[in-house]
Amino acid sequence: MKTILIKQAQLDGVPCDVLIEGNTIRMVADTIEMEVDKVLDATHKAIIPGFANTHTHAAMTLFRGLGEDLPLMEWLNDYIWLYEAGIDEEMVYWGAKMACVEMIRSGTTCFNDHYPYLSGTVQAAEEMGLRSVQAYSWIDSFKAERAEAHKKELVRLHKASKQWSEITQFAVGPHAIYTVSSDSLQWMAAYAKEHGLMLHFHLAESETEHKNSLKNFGVSPTRYLYDLKVLGANVVIAHGIWLSPEDIQILADHGVNVVHNPNSNFKLASGYKFMYNELRDAGVRVCLGTDGCASSNNLDMLEAMKHAAFMQKAWRYNPEAMPLNELISIASLHGYEAMGVHAGKVESGWLADVVLIDLQQPAFVPNHNFYANLVYAANGSVVDTVICNGQILMEEKKIDGAAYIMDKAQEMAEKLVRKTKV
Amino acid sequence: MKTILIKQAQLDGVPCDVLIEGNTIRMVADTIEMEVDKVLDATHKAIIPGFANTHTHAAMTLFRGLGEDLPLMEWLNDYIWLYEAGIDEEMVYWGAKMACVEMIRSGTTCFNDHYPYLSGTVQAAEEMGLRSVQAYSWIDSFKAERAEAHKKELVRLHKASKQWSEITQFAVGPHAIYTVSSDSLQWMAAYAKEHGLMLHFHLAESETEHKNSLKNFGVSPTRYLYDLKVLGANVVIAHGIWLSPEDIQILADHGVNVVHNPNSNFKLASGYKFMYNELRDAGVRVCLGTDGCASSNNLDMLEAMKHAAFMQKAWRYNPEAMPLNELISIASLHGYEAMGVHAGKVESGWLADVVLIDLQQPAFVPNHNFYANLVYAANGSVVDTVICNGQILMEEKKIDGAAYIMDKAQEMAEKLVRKTKV
Repeated sequence: MKTILIKQAQLDGVPCDVLIEGNTIRMVADTIEMEVDKVLDATHKAIIPGFANTHTHAAMTLFRGLGEDLPLMEWLNDYIWLYEAGIDEEMVYWGAKMACVEMIRSGTTCFNDHYPYLSGTVQAAEEMGLRSVQAYSWIDSFKAERAEAHKKELVRLHKASKQWSEITQFAVGPHAIYTVSSDSLQWMAAYAKEHGLMLHFHLAESETEHKNSLKNFGVSPTRYLYDLKVLGANVVIAHGIWLSPEDIQILADHGVNVVHNPNSNFKLASGYKFMYNELRDAGVRVCLGTDGCASSNNLDMLEAMKHAAFMQKAWRYNPEAMPLNELISIASLHGYEAMGVHAGKVESGWLADVVLIDLQQPAFVPNHNFYANLVYAANGSVVDTVICNGQILMEEKKIDGAAYIMDKAQEMAEKLVRKTKV
Repeated sequence: MKTILIKQAQLDGVPCDVLIEGNTIRMVADTIEMEVDKVLDATHKAIIPGFANTHTHAAMTLFRGLGEDLPLMEWLNDYIWLYEAGIDEEMVYWGAKMACVEMIRSGTTCFNDHYPYLSGTVQAAEEMGLRSVQAYSWIDSFKAERAEAHKKELVRLHKASKQWSEITQFAVGPHAIYTVSSDSLQWMAAYAKEHGLMLHFHLAESETEHKNSLKNFGVSPTRYLYDLKVLGANVVIAHGIWLSPEDIQILADHGVNVVHNPNSNFKLASGYKFMYNELRDAGVRVCLGTDGCASSNNLDMLEAMKHAAFMQKAWRYNPEAMPLNELISIASLHGYEAMGVHAGKVESGWLADVVLIDLQQPAFVPNHNFYANLVYAANGSVVDTVICNGQILMEEKKIDGAAYIMDKAQEMAEKLVRKTKV
């Protein structure tokens, strides 16, 4: 088994050595002397768990910068959906490769994706070495024949997923309650339960969704899913902005995981009063995501942490809201837990998804408080080295092949724009 | 006169050459062929005006990370003011040098400072080559003898400022209406007017300030200053969060410049409903600042732009709020105008305060929209080269002496903590 020894990394302010054996952290100690395959000198570097981006659409890097500063429906109708109609698996592959470069650069080691042509995203993530959960994205627009086609394709891809590597999981991904029929939702919930799969979808994102749910179903989006018996501990919902106290209790009672996506919610003006304190106090596991680059516009989890914290403090008029120690868990451990992966801590026995931070940057001077510097002062550019599942994906800010991937992503984005009449 | 030729930089999406002669942009054209002292190859780079950080306390880099996630009064009483009591000119000098490194790294070419021991900040800024306005910081706590001492010191420093270089201006800096007497405010306003100086202070930052003003003066903070005849086109106010429609009209009528400081306001939970649309529509010049690192916690203007825009969109539930083209002006041209400096555009005849952006970064792939990528996707780390007043301060991300300055800032911060009993 391949061994990596990280020498003298700062772990919570204390220098230590970290031994990785295969895909696992085997030892964390003051000093470790051992013959290993690879030594990483981490003087002037800190070690942290990698980030778990728990809601994204990786391939949407190709859409970055299209249709800016527009109202939501105009943005969707006149830009995003027109472009999405032209996308194909090759584009998804290169868009996702580009996303992986960006995620690795900014310290993400695991992502929870939701996008069509998921085979392209799977291939990209596995080639780049990033851990991921890949949801089969299902929009049936309440049409039975589309639902039937989706069932066949979902089952086919689920079977195909047995060939995926150990770092990739298959999941079930109804898009949202306003694009998927109740029959489909129940079928997917049953399928996910039977096969032990995650159910990953958008919920309670906008006021429009909330109002339409009241109008069409007579209840809130969350209550609607409760009534359909869709909710459970395998469920990961993205957004969860429009939640009543009853909704929060329902989510808590069923162990549902909630992913906050600050950049996307703020930029699209979907809502900003994320009920973090209430969700946490009710016992809901809150995770963090960037959402896709069409709305985000990047995949930088450090930025997402900062935006989440600043907004909680701001709208509650309380600087104590969402403090640093909780933010760190939200951005890493909680996401890993939601994805059922034993990572998110730099401790012996945990999976080796870890990140080295370059402390020789202005953001870390002075060093009164490492986590404050990391989250409130720094950004993704301070990430130095990334290890996922025991494999080094970036060393001293260098990722093999990154320039070529960026060129190909540019080429695919141009092709997409040429194909699409906006 | 020294000449610099920037070759093939992207200016608003079009490659062009830019000729700098002395401290001025002399020519912008498709191609310029000329013998010059220095050629900068800007292939794969964009050129933009440098940012004008219009409210900061540079030396407070030393406080970065002290007293995080605390209520405002606890933060001030138990941390900031205790530490500030121990600060001296040497610390201010190194703290400000550190700030200059950080500002240059993230593309700021001009800053509007407000801090005690301003000679230290002036020396730092001039050595680093950054343009600045240095306000004499005045807190008299309503004590006549302290006001008298301040008057003498202000006049002394104003005289000394005649020896400063052309890139540094002297300004008058009453701290705020709750720390400076009305007599002092009027004296400073008269002095500033007589000598053609900027008057730079904090105003309408928190609800407490607003309520105390109503209680103590019977009017809002803005109205109080109007009644004292302090307001005018030479006035720059930082924050301006708690403003009524009448206050906004007063600011507009007097040509007062308002500096928005999103990071600081959100993190300290001072208020988030910044009246950008209303100020702009009333004709007020809105500028952007980071505030000091004690509350910010960095000096990255690109981050401040993003936070300002996302928050406007979020709290107004309107994704069209604070669009990109306005953001660019707010962060550069408006600040320069407020400081009376002819910079903020990459055009012939304007001062050569310009920045090259490294486009070979994930944030700029694909290149559908350069400004969206710059503000919404990138962060300060994409800044490649910085020129201020015709001098190259950073070339290809390298600043002379940066490592030594960071070491000294660390040393000073440790000394400050040792000196202070918290």
